[in-house]
Amino acid sequence: AGRLRVRELLGSPEPLGEVKVQGWVRSVRSQKDVLFLHINDGSSLENLQVVADPSLESRDLTFGSAVEVQGRLVKSPHGMQNMELQAETIHVVGPCDTLSFPLKIKRRHPLEYLRQLPHLRCRSNTNGSLLRIRSEATAAIHSFFQDNGYVHIHTPIITSNDCEGAGEVFQIETLKEARESAEETHFFDIPAFLTVSGQLHLEVIAGAFTRVFTFGPTFRAENSQSRRHLSEFYMVEAELSFTESLQDIMQVMEDLFKTVTSTVLSKCPCDVELFHKYMAPAQKDRLERTLKNKFVTISYNEAVEILKQASQTFTFKPEWGCDLQTEHEKYLVKHCGEIPVFVINYPYDLKPFYMRDNEDGPQHTVAAVDLLIPGIGELCGGSLREERLPFLESRLQRLGLTDTYQWYLDLRKFGSVPHGGFGMGFERYLQYILGVENIKDVIPFPRFPHSCLL
Amino acid sequence: AGRLRVRELLGSPEPLGEVKVQGWVRSVRSQKDVLFLHINDGSSLENLQVVADPSLESRDLTFGSAVEVQGRLVKSPHGMQNMELQAETIHVVGPCDTLSFPLKIKRRHPLEYLRQLPHLRCRSNTNGSLLRIRSEATAAIHSFFQDNGYVHIHTPIITSNDCEGAGEVFQIETLKEARESAEETHFFDIPAFLTVSGQLHLEVIAGAFTRVFTFGPTFRAENSQSRRHLSEFYMVEAELSFTESLQDIMQVMEDLFKTVTSTVLSKCPCDVELFHKYMAPAQKDRLERTLKNKFVTISYNEAVEILKQASQTFTFKPEWGCDLQTEHEKYLVKHCGEIPVFVINYPYDLKPFYMRDNEDGPQHTVAAVDLLIPGIGELCGGSLREERLPFLESRLQRLGLTDTYQWYLDLRKFGSVPHGGFGMGFERYLQYILGVENIKDVIPFPRFPHSCLL
Repeated sequence: AGRLRVRELLGSPEPLGEVKVQGWVRSVRSQKDVLFLHINDGSSLENLQVVADPSLESRDLTFGSAVEVQGRLVKSPHGMQNMELQAETIHVVGPCDTLSFPLKIKRRHPLEYLRQLPHLRCRSNTNGSLLRIRSEATAAIHSFFQDNGYVHIHTPIITSNDCEGAGEVFQIETLKEARESAEETHFFDIPAFLTVSGQLHLEVIAGAFTRVFTFGPTFRAENSQSRRHLSEFYMVEAELSFTESLQDIMQVMEDLFKTVTSTVLSKCPCDVELFHKYMAPAQKDRLERTLKNKFVTISYNEAVEILKQASQTFTFKPEWGCDLQTEHEKYLVKHCGEIPVFVINYPYDLKPFYMRDNEDGPQHTVAAVDLLIPGIGELCGGSLREERLPFLESRLQRLGLTDTYQWYLDLRKFGSVPHGGFGMGFERYLQYILGVENIKDVIPFPRFPHSCLL
Repeated sequence: AGRLRVRELLGSPEPLGEVKVQGWVRSVRSQKDVLFLHINDGSSLENLQVVADPSLESRDLTFGSAVEVQGRLVKSPHGMQNMELQAETIHVVGPCDTLSFPLKIKRRHPLEYLRQLPHLRCRSNTNGSLLRIRSEATAAIHSFFQDNGYVHIHTPIITSNDCEGAGEVFQIETLKEARESAEETHFFDIPAFLTVSGQLHLEVIAGAFTRVFTFGPTFRAENSQSRRHLSEFYMVEAELSFTESLQDIMQVMEDLFKTVTSTVLSKCPCDVELFHKYMAPAQKDRLERTLKNKFVTISYNEAVEILKQASQTFTFKPEWGCDLQTEHEKYLVKHCGEIPVFVINYPYDLKPFYMRDNEDGPQHTVAAVDLLIPGIGELCGGSLREERLPFLESRLQRLGLTDTYQWYLDLRKFGSVPHGGFGMGFERYLQYILGVENIKDVIPFPRFPHSCLL
């Protein structure tokens, strides 16, 4: 008998005869003449219904136990499902101590409760769906870039650059040195941190490759208790050479968002529906509107005007030259019709040295862009990079960073080209498409409360 | 005029008329009646030949400069190439200060020299090829697992588990706390490290998903000067539930190796040939033998016997109960005909608590496996995991680890199933298929000598 996955069995267009399936019991219902089981093996949200003679029941055959069932796959007469398995043998591979098992049968456990079970919550429907969606979204991101001729780069995790103010960094040491804490004994001779962005490394590679991307973990040592921030999160970053227009970068951001989302929706519709139905009933419509419409573009100058004229009172007063706060970003999206909004051309003094000078004035700006999305705020950030050596030299000198970024100046001496790029936070993306409130619910292993798994 | 990549232009089956190409000049050859350029844009090792009227030459048109060329793609009369570009305009986008440019035209720079140019070496043929190969291998690994129904999991980078002795860990702190170095003020309440393996996290997910994998960075705070080791490297790890036989795990390892390697060889034959031709002339045959033959399997017991009977003198005397050293591993591979060798069933006392007890004796072993490859030694390691609660309980108790691994015991109480998995070092894999001596030459950004990029 061939061993098949639940997903394959449910999707079979016709009866398959003798098959074997392995998985975990999600429900047991015993009637006088018939025993019903639901089996899940992680391949899909849907369970396989097993129909058996009551004589096959046993004490160990409970919710949570692991079983191997052999039988015949037949058309289901019950309407709910296409196929069902008529069991001939049921073998309990691993029993489950139901009394002490923290997951209870047919209970929709709140996310806060599941977060306290980092080692068991993947056995719940919600977290199972999340893991499948994360996996499909990851694959879709890789495919998007490969299909468009990008080369994938593993940018370093341990680095000494902090991307100029992207956020607080974590420092790393070997255990022995951490204990001695003599500043001279760094493992790497110089202080080493966990990366906050792969952008500068991608820019290096963009000096020989016209299209590159990275998709890996990044770190911020701040806001660990927030519902919006993680200390460890994944970021998709891309860099495009021979690109003179911010619009070209924005087009890739929009294409990436729409392509990946469409792929996820078509690859795991039931998993996404679980979130939209039970956690965020409004999110389905929102997402459809996002996919159907062309994203809006406004300038930072326009954004500040809109905010100043808003009837709403903000905690932070909108003012030219200040960063947009999440409250501002959410308002702007609402103002533009609840579809994603690109805000472009930010104040020169707000942004790091590598962003391209627009040479405008008196309100001096750089060619930067943020993508704001409904209900969340910033999802992506990007810019054209300053490719002109004299501009960079004077800017780095004014900032006192010339020595640190000598290598970056080098890039501009040897075949420098106009280029730009962007980054998208993967967890915030998932938060948006699923309508999940707390960002800690879209990672496989939550850090709160602390467990030995961390 | 459509903008196309060099790879697309070279692969075009017929003339395309008016096109535009952008890239970096790899050579300029000026003759009386004609100007030849070679343009590279990172899409392939091969350059596009541009033929132009000498009047299009300019002072800035040098090796290393960035150009945009417009013209007609025609059949090349020169035999070497399928297509060439007859230039109508040549625009130097970014000049190159050739005198101070550390890469010189038509010179094959040694890898040691390139390693000192972390921000420029991607512009050399060798490092360009490496990055394309790494990108294709990464894609092939993702595809292999997806095609076989595995779910991809992002296992945590910051963790408090050290996978029981896989290697020295890096500790992380926020900068402020590192300076104060009061042990009570950990950012995460408990000490946090950089992951050495995602295995234990994958095992958690394998309690609900029958096939899972991860592919991400892992860290070891040791051997940073070695040619065989990196402090930061990528690892492919997979975990399979409902798997009772070590042979099933080994079959996946062999399939992964052969599928990924065949894909890389067919996707970037010229890039791989560059390495095989100039760096490791013997590697091509070796690799073909590896792909053609079924991998050999011997037991640890047999391995020790073979080593004891070897005519060769080893630095470490082979002895039952001791770890195999690299010199032993290389000898075993040679002894078995220079094809990869699985060594199975290692001494119980050598291996961590989670490996499955073979209940044999008096030479007590566990169901562990290492895959050894020609010239290198260990490439993969794996095992069946101990799924039986009583075995685990007594073993953890003897080791004094019961409290730390309470969560791991939990996994065995609730639907435990036989399972196993393995890990493969990605850089060591690249080192083998390309025949690269120093592992630092297969990562995008070498750490030696230390630069501000680290």
